Amino acid sequence: MPDSAVPMSPQTLSSTVSPLRSLEVLSQHEVNRLRDTSKSGLHDILRRCALAVLSTGSMTDDSIELMEAYKDFDIEVLQQDRGIRLKLSHAPAEAFVDGKMIRGIREHLSSVLRDIVYVYNEIQTHKRFDLSTGEGTTNAVFHILRKAGTLKPGRDPSMVVCWGGHSITREEYEYTKDVGYHLGLRDLDICTGCGPGAMKGPMKGANVAHAKQRRSEGRYLGVSEPGIIAAEAPNPLVNELVVMPDIEKRLEAFVRLGHGIIVFPGGVGTAEEILYLLGILLHPDNADMEMPLIFTGPASAADYFRRIDEFLAYTLGDSARSKYRIIVDDPVEVARTMRKGVDAVTHYRREQQDAFHFNWRLTIARDFQAPFDPTHASMAGLALHRQQPIHELAANLRRAFSGIVAGNVKEQGIRAIAAQGPFTLHAEPELMTRLDDLLGSFVAQGRMKLPGKAYEPCYRLG
Amino acid sequence: MPDSAVPMSPQTLSSTVSPLRSLEVLSQHEVNRLRDTSKSGLHDILRRCALAVLSTGSMTDDSIELMEAYKDFDIEVLQQDRGIRLKLSHAPAEAFVDGKMIRGIREHLSSVLRDIVYVYNEIQTHKRFDLSTGEGTTNAVFHILRKAGTLKPGRDPSMVVCWGGHSITREEYEYTKDVGYHLGLRDLDICTGCGPGAMKGPMKGANVAHAKQRRSEGRYLGVSEPGIIAAEAPNPLVNELVVMPDIEKRLEAFVRLGHGIIVFPGGVGTAEEILYLLGILLHPDNADMEMPLIFTGPASAADYFRRIDEFLAYTLGDSARSKYRIIVDDPVEVARTMRKGVDAVTHYRREQQDAFHFNWRLTIARDFQAPFDPTHASMAGLALHRQQPIHELAANLRRAFSGIVAGNVKEQGIRAIAAQGPFTLHAEPELMTRLDDLLGSFVAQGRMKLPGKAYEPCYRLG
Amino acid sequence: MPDSAVPMSPQTLSSTVSPLRSLEVLSQHEVNRLRDTSKSGLHDILRRCALAVLSTGSMTDDSIELMEAYKDFDIEVLQQDRGIRLKLSHAPAEAFVDGKMIRGIREHLSSVLRDIVYVYNEIQTHKRFDLSTGEGTTNAVFHILRKAGTLKPGRDPSMVVCWGGHSITREEYEYTKDVGYHLGLRDLDICTGCGPGAMKGPMKGANVAHAKQRRSEGRYLGVSEPGIIAAEAPNPLVNELVVMPDIEKRLEAFVRLGHGIIVFPGGVGTAEEILYLLGILLHPDNADMEMPLIFTGPASAADYFRRIDEFLAYTLGDSARSKYRIIVDDPVEVARTMRKGVDAVTHYRREQQDAFHFNWRLTIARDFQAPFDPTHASMAGLALHRQQPIHELAANLRRAFSGIVAGNVKEQGIRAIAAQGPFTLHAEPELMTRLDDLLGSFVAQGRMKLPGKAYEPCYRLG
Amino acid sequence: MPDSAVPMSPQTLSSTVSPLRSLEVLSQHEVNRLRDTSKSGLHDILRRCALAVLSTGSMTDDSIELMEAYKDFDIEVLQQDRGIRLKLSHAPAEAFVDGKMIRGIREHLSSVLRDIVYVYNEIQTHKRFDLSTGEGTTNAVFHILRKAGTLKPGRDPSMVVCWGGHSITREEYEYTKDVGYHLGLRDLDICTGCGPGAMKGPMKGANVAHAKQRRSEGRYLGVSEPGIIAAEAPNPLVNELVVMPDIEKRLEAFVRLGHGIIVFPGGVGTAEEILYLLGILLHPDNADMEMPLIFTGPASAADYFRRIDEFLAYTLGDSARSKYRIIVDDPVEVARTMRKGVDAVTHYRREQQDAFHFNWRLTIARDFQAPFDPTHASMAGLALHRQQPIHELAANLRRAFSGIVAGNVKEQGIRAIAAQGPFTLHAEPELMTRLDDLLGSFVAQGRMKLPGKAYEPCYRLG
Repeated sequence: MPDSAVPMSPQTLSSTVSPLRSLEVLSQHEVNRLRDTSKSGLHDILRRCALAVLSTGSMTDDSIELMEAYKDFDIEVLQQDRGIRLKLSHAPAEAFVDGKMIRGIREHLSSVLRDIVYVYNEIQTHKRFDLSTGEGTTNAVFHILRKAGTLKPGRDPSMVVCWGGHSITREEYEYTKDVGYHLGLRDLDICTGCGPGAMKGPMKGANVAHAKQRRSEGRYLGVSEPGIIAAEAPNPLVNELVVMPDIEKRLEAFVRLGHGIIVFPGGVGTAEEILYLLGILLHPDNADMEMPLIFTGPASAADYFRRIDEFLAYTLGDSARSKYRIIVDDPVEVARTMRKGVDAVTHYRREQQDAFHFNWRLTIARDFQAPFDPTHASMAGLALHRQQPIHELAANLRRAFSGIVAGNVKEQGIRAIAAQGPFTLHAEPELMTRLDDLLGSFVAQGRMKLPGKAYEPCYRLG
Repeated sequence: MPDSAVPMSPQTLSSTVSPLRSLEVLSQHEVNRLRDTSKSGLHDILRRCALAVLSTGSMTDDSIELMEAYKDFDIEVLQQDRGIRLKLSHAPAEAFVDGKMIRGIREHLSSVLRDIVYVYNEIQTHKRFDLSTGEGTTNAVFHILRKAGTLKPGRDPSMVVCWGGHSITREEYEYTKDVGYHLGLRDLDICTGCGPGAMKGPMKGANVAHAKQRRSEGRYLGVSEPGIIAAEAPNPLVNELVVMPDIEKRLEAFVRLGHGIIVFPGGVGTAEEILYLLGILLHPDNADMEMPLIFTGPASAADYFRRIDEFLAYTLGDSARSKYRIIVDDPVEVARTMRKGVDAVTHYRREQQDAFHFNWRLTIARDFQAPFDPTHASMAGLALHRQQPIHELAANLRRAFSGIVAGNVKEQGIRAIAAQGPFTLHAEPELMTRLDDLLGSFVAQGRMKLPGKAYEPCYRLG
Repeated sequence: MPDSAVPMSPQTLSSTVSPLRSLEVLSQHEVNRLRDTSKSGLHDILRRCALAVLSTGSMTDDSIELMEAYKDFDIEVLQQDRGIRLKLSHAPAEAFVDGKMIRGIREHLSSVLRDIVYVYNEIQTHKRFDLSTGEGTTNAVFHILRKAGTLKPGRDPSMVVCWGGHSITREEYEYTKDVGYHLGLRDLDICTGCGPGAMKGPMKGANVAHAKQRRSEGRYLGVSEPGIIAAEAPNPLVNELVVMPDIEKRLEAFVRLGHGIIVFPGGVGTAEEILYLLGILLHPDNADMEMPLIFTGPASAADYFRRIDEFLAYTLGDSARSKYRIIVDDPVEVARTMRKGVDAVTHYRREQQDAFHFNWRLTIARDFQAPFDPTHASMAGLALHRQQPIHELAANLRRAFSGIVAGNVKEQGIRAIAAQGPFTLHAEPELMTRLDDLLGSFVAQGRMKLPGKAYEPCYRLG
Repeated sequence: MPDSAVPMSPQTLSSTVSPLRSLEVLSQHEVNRLRDTSKSGLHDILRRCALAVLSTGSMTDDSIELMEAYKDFDIEVLQQDRGIRLKLSHAPAEAFVDGKMIRGIREHLSSVLRDIVYVYNEIQTHKRFDLSTGEGTTNAVFHILRKAGTLKPGRDPSMVVCWGGHSITREEYEYTKDVGYHLGLRDLDICTGCGPGAMKGPMKGANVAHAKQRRSEGRYLGVSEPGIIAAEAPNPLVNELVVMPDIEKRLEAFVRLGHGIIVFPGGVGTAEEILYLLGILLHPDNADMEMPLIFTGPASAADYFRRIDEFLAYTLGDSARSKYRIIVDDPVEVARTMRKGVDAVTHYRREQQDAFHFNWRLTIARDFQAPFDPTHASMAGLALHRQQPIHELAANLRRAFSGIVAGNVKEQGIRAIAAQGPFTLHAEPELMTRLDDLLGSFVAQGRMKLPGKAYEPCYRLG
């Protein structure tokens, strides 16, 4: 059916399509800017993201492979009288049925255009978005989400954010479907980062459950960012797509949109997300914030979460442990617990007269909003000791993990390691040992890189 | 039922309500600005407009009388946690049912807030709206209408703008209802300037017809401006309300939104509107523009339109006459002709790939966008002769009529006349005679001022 | 606008139309029966009822005049392949717009066909409807209403039945609009017997209020019967029309559908309705039944209700008085009281787990279901004394009033009076005097017959 | 997720639920009959069908196994005041979420009650349904489908009936999903006989495609009958369920509802269906009937269809061949061809002014409506020779296949074979050989019985 590997010379098709929804009513001025911007420096990013959504359903998660396969692909914004049309050249043929683009893909394409070009214009040209401040950043996140139509005022809290690896075992994947199914039976919606694995399973499960419950308004919200969308294209079930400008704003979108969060097994990247979230929840301002957080996986993943739990207990203390609950191999219990948690969020927001659609009240320290650029120097300089407020230690640990992710898989990180050798991390002795153990267990469990390759560490604990 | 005179000490009520629709999802920043702006110089205008919509259905068209009656009325924007609420003090009790504000009035109130305060913020703080240029002005008009949700992309052309006097005879009022009824039977919608008379009749008629045709999505669009809304409050049938910033933008909204225009009898103000529209349609760029335009009234109004027709023929020539059709005492024929005209507009826009919801292609010369300030000097300086392009003569004649309206009824104009005597208008002799005849006929027909008072001319043809 | 007198040679039009809604999916067998039945003895009744709905909006309430004016009108059911079409000859032209039948009229026409022909088939050919029993009759009433789609399971109680004269003063008519307006503001719907006067006013008022409250699903239910529909054609606002087979089933439909009842001024017919309802409510089985009942009118109608109240107090006693409330000249109070009453009905039905859409629990004695045929003998034989259970006396008084109505306005009754002189009614002396006073007051108030004619009594109290 | 084997002592739960949709508004009389009938001879069939839909998603297709596992299960219709409730005892726990029945299952349960009990009442007690005639039978089929709400008047033709085995290979199952996916991409809906295999695959595929195309109103119609529903329970995607009274009416429902038919590989039962359909299409009255018919499967099924094609060519001639098209291993071509075929049906019905929702025009000879009871005598008496009209030969061949199905898998047939040995079929020599070859090929391909058992023929060609 939809999933298939990318052939060497795939069938392509050229066509022009009209965008949908928020791009239907544009002023001439907006049309001009859209056309001009799309031809400027943003063109390459637009092209890559567009290709990603047009190849939804293809099996590859390798964006380079995708770009190779469709190297002639191009996208152009045409001004046609008083509206715009998108001219696509050499686009993947499977995005079309008998010459007509599949509606869901057309929606994704419109979302990409809206978020890459239109929102870019809005954020750039508005003085009001001072991205160097917390308030300005949050404001920008809010505007992007509102523009995308994800903030629905009349709806009860129901959005469960699911995190976890995109390259997990079959057993773990089936488990994420099971959890999604039982969440869906309880009228909960799913938000993930798009892509396969733990990003797709919960949506598939919830979709079957929503069909059984005749819940026709089920939401499958994908929140991506330009650097990741090509590798983790939105699966066909995603019926709302937002492309945030960068990783930090994407993370902020998750925690302000979500009414509860479930973490499935993953690698060091998932550990980074856990530290991001705990770092926020441990901020004193958020002490009484309702935010159900569950770590879960099949029996085979029990050890993974046990290791993380021990590490968190040591580094962040028991207060951190009180923020989450680990449930092993029990999808029904996960779903019941999350349903109760979301009900508690509803109650809390109602009492506080807070909005349901955006968690304004959550304090996110500047540490967690500002991008961290992992270099040998910045990694070596991280303060990894327990003589600091725990949310600051959490921030530093998150940075350490983030750097390891970069050293493992991101182009820039890989090059830096190749040139200068592994990153060096300095930590107090006991913490060092613990960290070593944790990372070692990831390697042992095969979670550090793609299966079939031996892992060569990109860091050194010194 | 709804209509009643304002008593001396009317019942009032204090309450807080939440706004609706476009003001439901606001950022904290927007809430702050809204609250701050509403307390600034805009407060008085907000208060007057709010009072107007809260007294919908009251009989008076005298805004001063209204302000007197509710002199303790006030409105305040409260920031309540993450949204806003409106605090109303001493508001007209008839806007509430058992303590709860009538939903339609709450919508109008939200529209007023949106257009007075929110849109003001947007237009003011955006560099992109250069109101000194035609393009910038049109862009601003577009943005205000889009924000108000009046631009509906999926809908076929159906919007008939109805102009005419708000103080007309009972017979003429019944005629406007009849025309509205036959328009409504033909699935056409109504846009007027709000208020009573020819602004209300067509909506009432169309509403009955839409009920008969089971047309549940009928549109009754009121386009007002702050200076007029208190005197011409939206009647209860108005289900979309937009408050444009000034007269010129309101006129531009009419001609870009409407797919056809009907002019009912009125006074010199209606003559001004006719010249505004013909001035635009006679612009060479608009030569092939489809825009059905009908002048109509009961048999008793035949003379009114005959006089206007003769005057237009003489001043603007037969090309002007080809732009409109006069139909006397035949509502069915009016409706049929308009239906055909709107169908032709649909066809034209489709061929040109123009938008249905906004007439971008219509050229409006800067003359018609820029406000005209009627003073003794500016009136005396108007070039009223036929040795100029006809659309320029039309612009100057419009200014002359506009000045007379001001001299008749607007505070500033009346004071200028009292101090310096009537305006003097200079025109070539034959045109002077014709103008004299036309204005004289208005006086004779009692259309120059409210009934029951002798008319003292505010102008002198010299 | 829509209302106009019937001209002598009105414009007509021939056309074929498809029926709507419940007649869209028919079996071939049903189509055949429908066509055959419509050509049989039912044809004349179908023709008259169809003409009535096609002349909606015409001013006349004289069915003979209507039939005269359109004496060539005919309707035929065509079997066209697998569905039906209605062939109309010489139909009133105002039912059409540019050759196409107005949608609401097409709905009414389909309702007439459904209820006259289709339902007739169903009721006749089903053994299960034993109309000689109370259960069978109620079952038939239920099936007709369900078939018409008036029983909507998911909706909260909101249906207010309005009774009163169809020929009332302008002041009374305006009052009924006012009451309807304030009911509509409180989210209540209107059910009447179709036609003008007190049958139309409440709907007009409620419609304006529903528009103000943006209540798009407002219901305007007309319940008619073949003998009355020509004289009291459904007004254009009626968006659900049911034609019950006879007067008694129509009355039963009112009391089982309605969640509250308002009685406006009327003549002896209205007095009959009051006695019908009180006769039912005074049945011991209905002792605790919630059924808000309000008599109301403008100040000028105070005497009318005072007289009725006194008469009821004397004949039926104070228990009868406890069943209704008289409110004079206060539409807001009427609406508030009714809103509270309907809320009490909701509460009661919920407690009893009763359906909201049909009042199964109401006991209607056979006396009130069986038709009364007023002849000189049956009138003379009525037991009009207080030595019987009050609900039986109510039944007999209702019959007496019913006979007077027939003698006043129905063809058969008028002929009987002409041939044999007035009906004689026998009653115990005091009751006789009271009855004489009451009827005399109706005559004095001009409520016994159409204005402009002296009233010649059709009865004699002996 | 949803699919799981039935454990020995499954979890159960007792509860009462309200029915949905067409059973919401019932008369007291209907409630009584429903309750009484459900306690009568229909109780056992109701219980078995109810259990089937409550165990939707369980893996077994063995109804005896299911009844064993839930031997304490029971269902009772309660009259609760004015409506009904269903009391379930020891029902499968997986039909509930936190004590509340899954909405889709509640709908299926209501459908079962409606069709087993309510429709039974209607069909039995109505004189109009003379099931001994073709017209009466078709009328009954129509009424059952209309009552179930499957006849939707406003919808364009889109219903593709999919037939084939419920026990097919994994490869064939994936192929049916693929075909369903490409049908769904082309806005086509799916109707099957419920159950697994070729009954489920097309719905799963279409569901994914409808999600991609944002087609929220996709239909997944399951048409079952009491004898088969336990073995082939409706899968969770079925959003409309109808239980027809017997096999013949179920087949008639398929061919009158469907706008096109696809046959996937199956066993002798599928061959029977093919002969049923061709027998009808070859009737002279149906000569110009539009009814797209495609046989399709993966490459591995090519031989299956080749054999059937040869057999049909020999027995029914080339005219039969012109009625279908065989497409091997090309889901896209199948979907494109079906889309074109359904468009042709739309065109044909429009031209003939036929209904879209029910194919009244299709002639079904009485031979194909009357049940065939396979006994040794009736099987031996079948006229299997080519000296008869081909649609009669088709009818007889269908009966022969039907008898073999009974002898293979139905209780009564198996017992008859055990007692009296195999059925004997008499045919002319060449036809005998061909039939022998065809049946032999089914055995060789393992299509005659469940995998893992050697096939012992239940027939003898003599």
